[in-house]
Amino acid sequence: MRMYDIIEKKRDNKELTTEEIEYFVREYSLSNIEDYQMSALLMAIYLNKMNARELTDLTFAMAKSSNMINLDSIKEEGKFIVDKHSTGGVGDKVTLIVLPIVASLGAKVCKMSGRGLGFTGGTADKLEAIKGYDVNIDIQRAKEQVNDIGVALISQSSDIAIADKKLYALRDVTATVESIDLISASVMSKKIASGADKILLDVTCGSGAFMKDIASARRLAQTMVNIGKIANIETKAIITSMDEPLGRSVGNAVEIKEVISFLLSDETTLNSKSLKGLKDVVFECAAWMLKLANVGEDIEENKVKIMEEITSKRAYNKFIELIKAQGGHIHSVYMDLLGMSIDMPVLNDQVKYLKDIRAEKSGHIVSIDSKKIGEALVSLGGGRKTKQDSIDHAVGFEFINKVGSKVNESDTILKVFYNDKEKFDEAFEYIKDAIVIENLEDTLGEALSNKPHILDII
Amino acid sequence: MRMYDIIEKKRDNKELTTEEIEYFVREYSLSNIEDYQMSALLMAIYLNKMNARELTDLTFAMAKSSNMINLDSIKEEGKFIVDKHSTGGVGDKVTLIVLPIVASLGAKVCKMSGRGLGFTGGTADKLEAIKGYDVNIDIQRAKEQVNDIGVALISQSSDIAIADKKLYALRDVTATVESIDLISASVMSKKIASGADKILLDVTCGSGAFMKDIASARRLAQTMVNIGKIANIETKAIITSMDEPLGRSVGNAVEIKEVISFLLSDETTLNSKSLKGLKDVVFECAAWMLKLANVGEDIEENKVKIMEEITSKRAYNKFIELIKAQGGHIHSVYMDLLGMSIDMPVLNDQVKYLKDIRAEKSGHIVSIDSKKIGEALVSLGGGRKTKQDSIDHAVGFEFINKVGSKVNESDTILKVFYNDKEKFDEAFEYIKDAIVIENLEDTLGEALSNKPHILDII
Repeated sequence: MRMYDIIEKKRDNKELTTEEIEYFVREYSLSNIEDYQMSALLMAIYLNKMNARELTDLTFAMAKSSNMINLDSIKEEGKFIVDKHSTGGVGDKVTLIVLPIVASLGAKVCKMSGRGLGFTGGTADKLEAIKGYDVNIDIQRAKEQVNDIGVALISQSSDIAIADKKLYALRDVTATVESIDLISASVMSKKIASGADKILLDVTCGSGAFMKDIASARRLAQTMVNIGKIANIETKAIITSMDEPLGRSVGNAVEIKEVISFLLSDETTLNSKSLKGLKDVVFECAAWMLKLANVGEDIEENKVKIMEEITSKRAYNKFIELIKAQGGHIHSVYMDLLGMSIDMPVLNDQVKYLKDIRAEKSGHIVSIDSKKIGEALVSLGGGRKTKQDSIDHAVGFEFINKVGSKVNESDTILKVFYNDKEKFDEAFEYIKDAIVIENLEDTLGEALSNKPHILDII
Repeated sequence: MRMYDIIEKKRDNKELTTEEIEYFVREYSLSNIEDYQMSALLMAIYLNKMNARELTDLTFAMAKSSNMINLDSIKEEGKFIVDKHSTGGVGDKVTLIVLPIVASLGAKVCKMSGRGLGFTGGTADKLEAIKGYDVNIDIQRAKEQVNDIGVALISQSSDIAIADKKLYALRDVTATVESIDLISASVMSKKIASGADKILLDVTCGSGAFMKDIASARRLAQTMVNIGKIANIETKAIITSMDEPLGRSVGNAVEIKEVISFLLSDETTLNSKSLKGLKDVVFECAAWMLKLANVGEDIEENKVKIMEEITSKRAYNKFIELIKAQGGHIHSVYMDLLGMSIDMPVLNDQVKYLKDIRAEKSGHIVSIDSKKIGEALVSLGGGRKTKQDSIDHAVGFEFINKVGSKVNESDTILKVFYNDKEKFDEAFEYIKDAIVIENLEDTLGEALSNKPHILDII
């Protein structure tokens, strides 16, 4: 078999065989194929695409390119291990809320999460805003923890799907990242290598996501669901809105605070307009994870159970249990609202400065570009420009008003927590660009506030 | 400017600017761009193509990537310097015949020719079948020779269009050679860097050529002619048939013998059926070169002059002059047909063995696959598998019968000259596959013999 012939075949829009796909993934992992041949093939795949069979072969070849994780030791009779993946976004703290909920309801979860790069954040980074929390415990210890408390949340092991890692690095410098086929194979290979029985995908859509429009998001979702089908790993995809940042906070420590606040909310607060977007995504994802895990068949009934699990504080207690199990520091805080002291994570949240960003004119906020807000966070040092960058966990944004809100001139739209005045100036340029205020009828503003966050389920 | 953005732009099928094209050609020549980025761009160009403006920019950027040759010192008032290029074939000795003819008629020619690779032969290799002939004289000496005798035929200088050379080596291993756009830019960049005023292209078409069908050949011809037009370098393309090998011989020394024989032919022989294909291509190319050089306006009148130039032996004498000027050895041979002694090149043509390949059955020869005959020559050692291979100039084939000929079982179709019995066995497999004999009506056989060799002029 020759790499040249494989490039030529895909260049001519012909279907590659399983053997050909296994050959180039294996030999490239072993550095027996040159980067310049692989990048030519990647561009040919980008432009000529792969069919579902080829993509599934590619996914499996990448999954098998290094050790696959075996989760048999945490399986329970009649239940399935479900993994969750989000295609990334700004203010996306859904995993941090959903995992304690579903674990508390009896679905075991052993999840590996990525780090942020560019304008999108990563769950592993957010967890490190908690003092002492160790995302790097090994998979063996993580499995023991799951058997103990039902949940572990660790950083993605560097030896999972090594071929995908090598290919991603090459795609990153050859303009072949934004391929629905290659993104699908990359995501699914890591999930399959992570050993789950079933997969729930949160496919984000909008300015702060890879997929900018609903049609692309649907194609990506369908492609991954098809791979799951052929691979016999049931996969469900929820398409969620990522036009404005999700929830009220963007950053690392600030998002952990929002997670705490969410899990400590009562039913009235959870049903309030101000929590709607985040709550819809959390409830939908958690309900589907429970269904896939065979812990609750009916989605609507699952949502009722989820509400009860939060308002009873059982989900919050599971979150604290998780943090303690992985070495996170906890302190006791008296909460007026609850009239009691409560365990809380100790955060790396010390900032020197706080500044309010105010409305330049009166009107309705018609858009908050989440990509630009993500870029603003990177400017402050709260995200990475390159993989080597370190992160300032304390910086971030807290939104007082969001899309659809009616504001008067000089009303605060968001608060900026920062440590460096020069970096603030750079971030401010992004923030200014991100927010658009226009005069609208109140009913139109209301409609914007209420636009759905669950766009489709595939 | 970033290479990443250029790849992304072409990937998305957008037009590249002149600056972008100059940037990547220059920086790649200087090794400031990695091969893996360039190969991704080449595949994107292969699949998304370039428009005429982009291609002309690419051509000029490659031509200017190293020293361009200046031919001012050989220019004559009112005449133009014409270069000729063939896109390659099997048995293609046209340049060797055409150059002495047009030089003898007063068009100065300073031509650089390539070496063979794979199944196609190269003019520089054929010349080296002549003992002492030096294809490597430098351009300064070549220009002096042109001023002296009107013609020089040297091997392509290694520092012409260096970017093209580097790009070609990368295309060769990344399945991006067979792009009409990239072939056009490559050919035209070398011609432009070689300093000619006008260009005549022999675009070969058929099994023994890059372009297998007339539609592709027309596209290639049109693309190159368009580049010439935008570049203000008048370019004419003659599309010629390369389904069966051109002429009667395939090899190096054997083709020089055919050139000698052609240039020593009388009018009856030149007009005979057996010389038809080669004669048509030679006369068409020479007539157009004369027209482009402003030595003869009318194509048909030029053909009359060409006939006269050959039958008077002036063209042959120019050929001998050229060989002597570049150090080739000459001996005197008594020719019965002419009833006189004549100067002839001394050839490296010593072979140990000669074998006749005979018809396996009676019928008409319906095809002789020129690619397979080219491969057979490579098997015998008469061509190169890799650039580093050395060549056995003496081996080759001489066809007694060609397409359209009626043969009886065991009639000789061709003679094989060879030096190694094992290599013969490998070559024989190709030859056997190359020749197809079927029972046809005689009129059909006649039609096959007479099929035109000039397919189009663009």
